[in-house]
Amino acid sequence: MPSTAGTAPAIKVLPTPSGLPEPLPEPTVEELRLETVLGALSDPLRLTIVRKLLLESEQFDHSCGWFGFDRPKSSLTHHFKALREAGVTRQRQYGLERRSHVRVDDLNACFPGLLDLVAAWAPEA
Amino acid sequence: MPSTAGTAPAIKVLPTPSGLPEPLPEPTVEELRLETVLGALSDPLRLTIVRKLLLESEQFDHSCGWFGFDRPKSSLTHHFKALREAGVTRQRQYGLERRSHVRVDDLNACFPGLLDLVAAWAPEA
Repeated sequence: MPSTAGTAPAIKVLPTPSGLPEPLPEPTVEELRLETVLGALSDPLRLTIVRKLLLESEQFDHSCGWFGFDRPKSSLTHHFKALREAGVTRQRQYGLERRSHVRVDDLNACFPGLLDLVAAWAPEA
Repeated sequence: MPSTAGTAPAIKVLPTPSGLPEPLPEPTVEELRLETVLGALSDPLRLTIVRKLLLESEQFDHSCGWFGFDRPKSSLTHHFKALREAGVTRQRQYGLERRSHVRVDDLNACFPGLLDLVAAWAPEA
């Protein structure tokens, strides 16, 4: 079967807690570019990150440890930064830890349907 | 304004003529992968190619000369091949010339809404 045929699973949006740290630098909604967002999503690990955040988030944002990837931390840091700099995720610094969540409203406003494709994606068998 | 906000322009699908040459090698529908397709589309020139084919096609498929790009032919050949190998376009050899069209039905079946994002895209001002 094609990787994203069928109905997309439901995207969870958790309420924004109060008192969050400021977001790290990111593009504004007006600066979001389709080519840049697609480039950030053109990687199975980054699709996995975004999909898991969309479908399985247990809190507002998550640090890279939550994902349970068996990868060097430096590599993961790079991927999380690439997603933030493309405008796919928002990152905040909590002490020594950075946590990410997906900019669902911004992406739905600019690129309707794109996150449904990510939610429906599955890694190659 | 974000690059793809608003309503997507209508995608034109021209009827398939009879007696076409065989398509060049390409992934089957079952082999289409979201990460690969997004990678192929994460480039302004390739988005321009696909968008122009979707919205302005005057015949079933078009050679690279039709686009009027001021780029070396070798660079264009590379981009058209990348689109075909990702499964975004289908290419056929007509004598010395290759012509491309977008695999609209296949992409809509696998990645609903993706081509509307391409159609709504505009190059950076």
